Amino acid sequence: MKIIALLTDFGLSDNFVGVMKGVIYRINSEAKIVDLCHQIESHNIHQAAFLLKKSYPYFSEGTVFVVVVDPGVGGERKPIIVKTEKYLFVAPDNGVLSFLVERDIKKIIHITNEEYFLKPVSRTFHGRDIFAAVAAHLSEGERIENFGPAIKDMERIELPEPGVEKNRLLGEIIYVDRFGNLITNINRDVFLQFIERKKFRIVIGETRISKISSSYQEGKEGSPIAIFDSFDNLEISLYRSDASRSLNLNKGSKIYIEKSNT
Amino acid sequence: MKIIALLTDFGLSDNFVGVMKGVIYRINSEAKIVDLCHQIESHNIHQAAFLLKKSYPYFSEGTVFVVVVDPGVGGERKPIIVKTEKYLFVAPDNGVLSFLVERDIKKIIHITNEEYFLKPVSRTFHGRDIFAAVAAHLSEGERIENFGPAIKDMERIELPEPGVEKNRLLGEIIYVDRFGNLITNINRDVFLQFIERKKFRIVIGETRISKISSSYQEGKEGSPIAIFDSFDNLEISLYRSDASRSLNLNKGSKIYIEKSNT
Amino acid sequence: MKIIALLTDFGLSDNFVGVMKGVIYRINSEAKIVDLCHQIESHNIHQAAFLLKKSYPYFSEGTVFVVVVDPGVGGERKPIIVKTEKYLFVAPDNGVLSFLVERDIKKIIHITNEEYFLKPVSRTFHGRDIFAAVAAHLSEGERIENFGPAIKDMERIELPEPGVEKNRLLGEIIYVDRFGNLITNINRDVFLQFIERKKFRIVIGETRISKISSSYQEGKEGSPIAIFDSFDNLEISLYRSDASRSLNLNKGSKIYIEKSNT
Repeated sequence: MKIIALLTDFGLSDNFVGVMKGVIYRINSEAKIVDLCHQIESHNIHQAAFLLKKSYPYFSEGTVFVVVVDPGVGGERKPIIVKTEKYLFVAPDNGVLSFLVERDIKKIIHITNEEYFLKPVSRTFHGRDIFAAVAAHLSEGERIENFGPAIKDMERIELPEPGVEKNRLLGEIIYVDRFGNLITNINRDVFLQFIERKKFRIVIGETRISKISSSYQEGKEGSPIAIFDSFDNLEISLYRSDASRSLNLNKGSKIYIEKSNT
Repeated sequence: MKIIALLTDFGLSDNFVGVMKGVIYRINSEAKIVDLCHQIESHNIHQAAFLLKKSYPYFSEGTVFVVVVDPGVGGERKPIIVKTEKYLFVAPDNGVLSFLVERDIKKIIHITNEEYFLKPVSRTFHGRDIFAAVAAHLSEGERIENFGPAIKDMERIELPEPGVEKNRLLGEIIYVDRFGNLITNINRDVFLQFIERKKFRIVIGETRISKISSSYQEGKEGSPIAIFDSFDNLEISLYRSDASRSLNLNKGSKIYIEKSNT
Repeated sequence: MKIIALLTDFGLSDNFVGVMKGVIYRINSEAKIVDLCHQIESHNIHQAAFLLKKSYPYFSEGTVFVVVVDPGVGGERKPIIVKTEKYLFVAPDNGVLSFLVERDIKKIIHITNEEYFLKPVSRTFHGRDIFAAVAAHLSEGERIENFGPAIKDMERIELPEPGVEKNRLLGEIIYVDRFGNLITNINRDVFLQFIERKKFRIVIGETRISKISSSYQEGKEGSPIAIFDSFDNLEISLYRSDASRSLNLNKGSKIYIEKSNT
């Protein structure tokens, strides 16, 4: 039984997601559908690409991911299938698949075979007419070569990468979760390599932190803590409180780390 | 394996929907449940009827739809089953099934057989005690005649229909989706019949539009566009932007179309 | 086929719930997952315990409940399994399982066997690394004794209980649902025992009510009504309207009932 995981910016207040599921089950009544997330900000390709990157490795081999954040729907961007070592991804070719692990990518298909589409194909809802329908056929074991020609590459977007400048590691907040935790683009490896086991100071807004906590509990005394989150990104948190609101920091806020002299 | 699709105004912040699913699986552990939408505005029968109309044709034959927008719960409105050519609908008889395709309706049953209810039946949550339970039994193949007597008709509500007045086609916004797209009650057929292949002008608020776009991409230059949406209604949109907020238009806003003199 | 029901404060705007489901299906591809609710207020153990209490009896025997409201994640609180007559519960030992029916509890297990965890176990997301993984193994029929040693008791929290003072039954609002209905901690039995079939007066804010309605319909005339809700708690409601907003009452608001002299 194949899993189809949906990641969209469709929200849950309309019928978009429900109708996609109707279409999937009409084609493959044995599919198992998982809502990965539908609350991506409207048209925010970066956010979707980031959440996908952090999520897909937790799924079973063979899962088909359908990623529909598609501001260019009805335009010239291509619908594509990307096959990796373990998974299949169906999405518009707009960068939303940029953060898959590069070496795992085995093939990219430009979806052109309209046999697999829901007809007539609308100009405004390819999530239903193309992506859901194609994913359902894929989940039945249809070979990806049947959907269209292989292509060499896909669109890429870039996450803001941390960089070193004047002996400081500069990063930024790239995501704020529902608890108000501030997730940075600095991951564990980059951090450890930079500090070289020396003392350090993390500076963000008015906040200064000089150690990495190993659990939220350490923030009990009321000061913000720095911690590696469950996806290995450096995160700034306030115990049982909303760090984003309390510290007045948000996506895009700058953070830097400096090695301590002492 | 039968699909049960749920459409309610219960939201997702309480346990209502989760408990309905618990009840369904207790009766039919093989059911496949789809959330069509749970964010209908509280008690808004029109909105539920509209979303149902736009959604149900996308589902597999045999799907059982459970529609619970039920301001009259515990009162005298009847619980009913409507059987159409391909589907079954379970709902309170308050108009929420008004927009099913009329000629497809084969039978209407007044649900009276309490054997199929969860006991004791509360006075405030028939979604759990009657509608979920009845749907689960239906999805097991129970014959609809067993649930109660056939009745001749059900309650009807009406959508505001577009009309022609002084050579203008008058309509209104009947739905605003999460992207802020303004969906009107003017569908493709009504529009085409009115304009008779002549030039036309669409007037809504301060906005004037004189063509139908074929994709959102055409709105790139920043002006509002008119487009037929994926369910064939005339829609006013702003490229990558919220038309409702930007144009200060909402449900109930009037729109009209006039044939151009030139 | 075993049901796994999820109750969390993770919301639906992040990937937390989707990733938990990915983990569950990777371990048991035959599991059936139900979202009981994910919109518990951040860290509100009371609210989760209350919703769980009201919901679990509606589920099939054998259901595994995963309750993750876990402000102490990464700290010293234990992960536990509670086995009752009919169900299994997996949760942090922080009181969130306090309102299970006491006499039904058969065994409490301190989960210590790391074989069942997702490795490496993060310090911030045990919902994924411990609770989802353990629930998936349980749903495959793994014996609870394999997860760790039995313990004698678990953490308990208390709901504010109604009390009698100066001949008045004092209670409070403990929950407000999406419709704005005000749910009190006074249940049907406590109420009936107090009033002894005499006349009574319910006092809450500026509102005075002297009868129990049997359906929302009775509120048609515009005045607030008192009704026993579908889970048998005394509830204050306004017909087709939001009682919380209209009456300016919320969680924590006091209510009392006095026997009438006449």
